[in-house]
Amino acid sequence: MARIAVVAGDGIGPEVVAQARKVVDAVLPGVRTTEYDLGAARYHRTGEVLPDSVLEELAGHDAILLGAVGDPTVPPGVLERGLLLKLRFAFDQYVNLRPSRLWPGTAGPLGGVKPGEVDLVVVREGTEGLYAGAGGSLHRGTPAEVATEESLNTRHGVERVIRDAFARAGRRERRKVTLVHKTNVLTHAGSLWARAFEAVAAEHPDVTTEYQHVDAAAMFLVTQPQRYDVVVTDNLFGDILTDIAAAVTGGIGLAASGSINPDGTYPSMFEPVHGSAPDIAGRGLADPVAAVLSAALLLDQLGHADAAARITAAVGAELAGRVPGVPVRTEEVGDRLAAHAAG
Amino acid sequence: MARIAVVAGDGIGPEVVAQARKVVDAVLPGVRTTEYDLGAARYHRTGEVLPDSVLEELAGHDAILLGAVGDPTVPPGVLERGLLLKLRFAFDQYVNLRPSRLWPGTAGPLGGVKPGEVDLVVVREGTEGLYAGAGGSLHRGTPAEVATEESLNTRHGVERVIRDAFARAGRRERRKVTLVHKTNVLTHAGSLWARAFEAVAAEHPDVTTEYQHVDAAAMFLVTQPQRYDVVVTDNLFGDILTDIAAAVTGGIGLAASGSINPDGTYPSMFEPVHGSAPDIAGRGLADPVAAVLSAALLLDQLGHADAAARITAAVGAELAGRVPGVPVRTEEVGDRLAAHAAG
Ligand SMILES: CC(C)[C@H](C(=O)O)[C@@H](O)C(=O)O
Ligand SMILES: CC(C)[C@H](C(=O)O)[C@@H](O)C(=O)O
Repeated sequence: MARIAVVAGDGIGPEVVAQARKVVDAVLPGVRTTEYDLGAARYHRTGEVLPDSVLEELAGHDAILLGAVGDPTVPPGVLERGLLLKLRFAFDQYVNLRPSRLWPGTAGPLGGVKPGEVDLVVVREGTEGLYAGAGGSLHRGTPAEVATEESLNTRHGVERVIRDAFARAGRRERRKVTLVHKTNVLTHAGSLWARAFEAVAAEHPDVTTEYQHVDAAAMFLVTQPQRYDVVVTDNLFGDILTDIAAAVTGGIGLAASGSINPDGTYPSMFEPVHGSAPDIAGRGLADPVAAVLSAALLLDQLGHADAAARITAAVGAELAGRVPGVPVRTEEVGDRLAAHAAG
Repeated sequence: MARIAVVAGDGIGPEVVAQARKVVDAVLPGVRTTEYDLGAARYHRTGEVLPDSVLEELAGHDAILLGAVGDPTVPPGVLERGLLLKLRFAFDQYVNLRPSRLWPGTAGPLGGVKPGEVDLVVVREGTEGLYAGAGGSLHRGTPAEVATEESLNTRHGVERVIRDAFARAGRRERRKVTLVHKTNVLTHAGSLWARAFEAVAAEHPDVTTEYQHVDAAAMFLVTQPQRYDVVVTDNLFGDILTDIAAAVTGGIGLAASGSINPDGTYPSMFEPVHGSAPDIAGRGLADPVAAVLSAALLLDQLGHADAAARITAAVGAELAGRVPGVPVRTEEVGDRLAAHAAG
């Protein structure tokens, strides 16, 4: 049976993760979990972000379920670089998977888009680009200061994530992959992405392809999100586009994500896209749906497609039954989802 | 009287620029214009993108009005790097100005946002960042290929654009500046931007400030565009965010932009955000409003605030009078705008 490391984290993290575990237990009893205390609280208490010993222990699990980490008093970058990105890079989680659906019964902000019409997934590269940590500064704090950030892209890294996107598209109904980049300005990286995309596309004649510049894609995600099926893009573009996709499909309260190592060499990590939301923490008001959907992605990745589908169906029923304007209660949502998914 | 270089360009460029000139003539008779033949057509005919002699002649003008350049057969980057970005960099156009309004009478894609509620301007840095052209590749075309793109940021370049944003905010009603970056991942450049922002903010106690990560800002532009007044950000983030802002305020058919050298050392350039739209070129169907509003930005920059305001008012009247679903006719719109602006 699967061994899952659980990092509940800070703020609403523990509340939503508790519901995700409840739902997982309901569909797949016997999953073994180990809790790891990581995040802002531990950092404040001990100064530690991710000790090597913990990294090693995490590596021994089949997957990681994370709630949310951070609070406003931790300096920018400490937990991001030290924990989240550290795990993505150390565990070679090169497929950062972010599905977005406008669920029947829910209302997005777009007047002209009907529930059920949007069903896309962004395959965001997770281990390269501007997230590589290559950069520096000179003459810091003086008028002569210069600061650099370097985007590093390899054929190896680009091709493997594009392959994953095409494989996913092949299993979906519309079989379409959109490459998003900025080839007209970032000509070196853009050319690499475009050539790798063409090469992989040639092996998949059954998959429709298109290319869009990132600024155009950002616009079309707002005006015509229905047009997308699978979107593949680089690390930073994916960061931005997935938040737009979440916004047009009802907000990050519903958005799940997986940082996946498809080879299975290292554990993959699953987490809601939302943060620790300290403003509502501890009040039972956080929507656990994003965490629960992240757990479904986790089970799917571990080969439990059936259990994952039952969770997804339960979420569909939950959202279809919601009355607009009525606030959710974290535990009650968890209970309903668990009952429906078990049922 | 002002001397304006006109680059009508390709596709719908000449059609919309003709209307912009008509409107400028109506509010400010006597403006002297020189036409320059640049863009895809010239590139195909002669192989030239921007000869040095033309660059020098352009430098002798007070401003440049550009329609749109490009067609799908020009390789990516040729006209962008060789013409548009070349001008931005050669003429040190460090303020890339992009206002977005949800005009009364128009309907954006957002169900919950009412016309008149959105009125924001993005001050996008125009001469640094990932647009600097610093990058390269190694082992190109082999499995070992690596491609880099480098974001270059200087205190000089960052501080001056932030100063411009605060100056603009000081002249607006809400007096609010939002800095957008990704300080939690791009820690070197992010720290430079954040420190320069803080320093300039300290000189403007009357201006409210906030900071947002670019992914959050992309989301809030969709869910709450009303919250923004002046947004200041780097070159690439600005490219993406301004297309989102255009999308939520009725599309790039209405979006104007200025690439401004505030010091007046070099001419500033004004152009609609839309491209050459070859699919509708020559049919009189292009909406000239974005080009006309760009001309208004041009006149404002040259000190003709009054003439600019008359054009803006004419656009307001035009849009308020439009019947949804009825296609625009390029010339008729130009005639109406000219008549209204002339008063
Ligand atoms: C917290 C941050 C490092 C992270 C990212 O930029 O990838 C987040 O925005 C995300 O999308 O998972
Ligand atoms: C055409 C391209 C170089 C340009 C940019 O990326 O700046 C365009 O997208 C814009 O926004 O003006």
